[in-house]
Amino acid sequence: MTLADQPPAAALLFQTLLAHGPLTRAEIGRRTGLSPGAITKVATPLLTDGWITELGRPAERTAGRPATLIAVRADRACFVGVKVTGDELIGVLTDLTARTLATARAHLASRDVGTVVLAVARLADRLRAQAPPRAAGALHGIGVTISGDVDGHTGTVQYSPFLNWRRVPLARLVQTATGIPAVIENDVRALTVAEQWFGVGVGLSSFALVTVGAGIGCGISIGGRVVSGAHGVSGEVGHLPVGGTDRVCTCGNTGCVEAVASAQAITEQARRATGDPVLTMGRAVRLAHAGNTDVRAVFARAGHALGLALASVANVIGPERIIISGEGVATYDLYEEQIRTTFAARAFGAAAECDLVVRPLPFEEWARGGAAVAAQRIFAPAK
Amino acid sequence: MTLADQPPAAALLFQTLLAHGPLTRAEIGRRTGLSPGAITKVATPLLTDGWITELGRPAERTAGRPATLIAVRADRACFVGVKVTGDELIGVLTDLTARTLATARAHLASRDVGTVVLAVARLADRLRAQAPPRAAGALHGIGVTISGDVDGHTGTVQYSPFLNWRRVPLARLVQTATGIPAVIENDVRALTVAEQWFGVGVGLSSFALVTVGAGIGCGISIGGRVVSGAHGVSGEVGHLPVGGTDRVCTCGNTGCVEAVASAQAITEQARRATGDPVLTMGRAVRLAHAGNTDVRAVFARAGHALGLALASVANVIGPERIIISGEGVATYDLYEEQIRTTFAARAFGAAAECDLVVRPLPFEEWARGGAAVAAQRIFAPAK
Repeated sequence: MTLADQPPAAALLFQTLLAHGPLTRAEIGRRTGLSPGAITKVATPLLTDGWITELGRPAERTAGRPATLIAVRADRACFVGVKVTGDELIGVLTDLTARTLATARAHLASRDVGTVVLAVARLADRLRAQAPPRAAGALHGIGVTISGDVDGHTGTVQYSPFLNWRRVPLARLVQTATGIPAVIENDVRALTVAEQWFGVGVGLSSFALVTVGAGIGCGISIGGRVVSGAHGVSGEVGHLPVGGTDRVCTCGNTGCVEAVASAQAITEQARRATGDPVLTMGRAVRLAHAGNTDVRAVFARAGHALGLALASVANVIGPERIIISGEGVATYDLYEEQIRTTFAARAFGAAAECDLVVRPLPFEEWARGGAAVAAQRIFAPAK
Repeated sequence: MTLADQPPAAALLFQTLLAHGPLTRAEIGRRTGLSPGAITKVATPLLTDGWITELGRPAERTAGRPATLIAVRADRACFVGVKVTGDELIGVLTDLTARTLATARAHLASRDVGTVVLAVARLADRLRAQAPPRAAGALHGIGVTISGDVDGHTGTVQYSPFLNWRRVPLARLVQTATGIPAVIENDVRALTVAEQWFGVGVGLSSFALVTVGAGIGCGISIGGRVVSGAHGVSGEVGHLPVGGTDRVCTCGNTGCVEAVASAQAITEQARRATGDPVLTMGRAVRLAHAGNTDVRAVFARAGHALGLALASVANVIGPERIIISGEGVATYDLYEEQIRTTFAARAFGAAAECDLVVRPLPFEEWARGGAAVAAQRIFAPAK
């Protein structure tokens, strides 16, 4: 049996179990709309081939009859997830439920496509070598995540500004270099999949994940699906036109959130405020913590712009929760108050009830998102 | 047989046929994930009871065997849809596929809840009297749409500013007054359902419908579902904080799109620009058409704010198309250029490929949205 030969209902059942954990047949029926007969039909080959299993313990009793739980068999397959940054690869090996089995990092000597692909292949080998004996032979996929305009369906990096890549067929290149089925995804979207599946997005009707750092990104999950955008673009909250500044953004416009609140923008504004042309972000943070009013105002302005961005997301899609992450959360204390005040003032009506949660997520969690995307796609790998 | 007794898979099959028209069993399987066996099982009672029908003509031949099309039986049931404005009710009678059979309007003597409910019941009676003989006995539901914070699940108008209603259990009141199962929905969301089902949203992976008039609203459809917001708020693009103005919005903030681009905001700005304190919108439009530079600048500013709002929607959700409608499209020529220029400049990357379509939709189309919502919900009427 290969999974790609299974009917769509099998993928639906399997992905429902992956995302929502052990479920009774009745719960599977409620979540998928599949009839009991259809569930039995699609579950049988998956049970036979060991992808799913019936748990012995009864979950609930209906009219005296114990209801069996069905679960994904975590050790049936393992996956490698990799996050590519400008100078480093962060990799994880996970089981089928995206539980981390091993981690590894590798320095990137250059951002050249060939170098990166080769480094990914070597990292995958190192991770595979760390796999538990039973799992080593069962490496089913690799998921590589990268910032920029990434088309997960065709496996192509359309444009990645920080690597300066355009139209790179990365999934195919990684698959050739590793011999493992490969998928690729935008890094923020992969992290959103991870949060939806096993983070603080579990069970929510909708949420947004806003990452603050070198850039300001956003992943959106509605009804259990990550919004990808009809033209591959979504969650570009860094370029929301919130005004209030004449600073020119990397995109050429003024008034973008990123022009005020990205790490680079904060550093530049702090340099201007202090008159020190070589001031670092670390030094700016220390000055702010020491009470430097001008530098504190720079962080407060960034917090105001971020609050406007979060309020815009809340007004447009009305998520249940917004998760704030990225390197920027290390300095969150310097703008949290401004973010929350602005958000409360500008989210419209009941949209302000949206829960704001700050969550530091190390790059290993981002890499785990890549493994989760790979696991989700074993029914339909990259073309 | 009652529809409410049918399994979830029956609702899924029926709603798929409603939204996507006649389909072969294979197409139903692809769209719903239901197995051929499950389709037969849920279709049989619907066929027996005349909700769906097999069309005689073969749609395609697979291996020489003609594939039968299954369709909803349009004349099996009819529905009333009503849009409530501040001074008028607009009603339509439709068949099960939301095709309009009759229309009627009624003046509202007051905005008092009892008066409006009674007027809705009388309008429904008038529409029922106009029904074709076969359909008259088959009135299955009424859908009332209203602007404001409307909770369609509980059937409650949480807040409607222009009627000054708070926590009105409107679905229950209408159901009691008419004796017909009633549902309610926010008017822009109902119009979005209508566009998704039988308008220019058909077949799109995602779209937004932005209505420009007394307020500025937005309905969002992603993956065939209208986004309702976890707290009942979504698409509040009128209150996106795009800045660029000191005018105070009805919500108390400055910098909102509505503070510059609503009908009231345009009229007030044109009054200030001309020094005429009783200038009407009609007169402002004539002055602009006659070339008055100051009044033209007011419309251009509104167009710029609308362009920023559309770009924000594109950057956040990346829709395939944005449909622009509402009373404001009557004066669209006065701000179209500014909308398109600003949108092109501020939509990020490929998000700018989103198609902008202007579409005048008379209030009867909004009312038809109410009938469409009622037809969609016959499996799960208001609680």
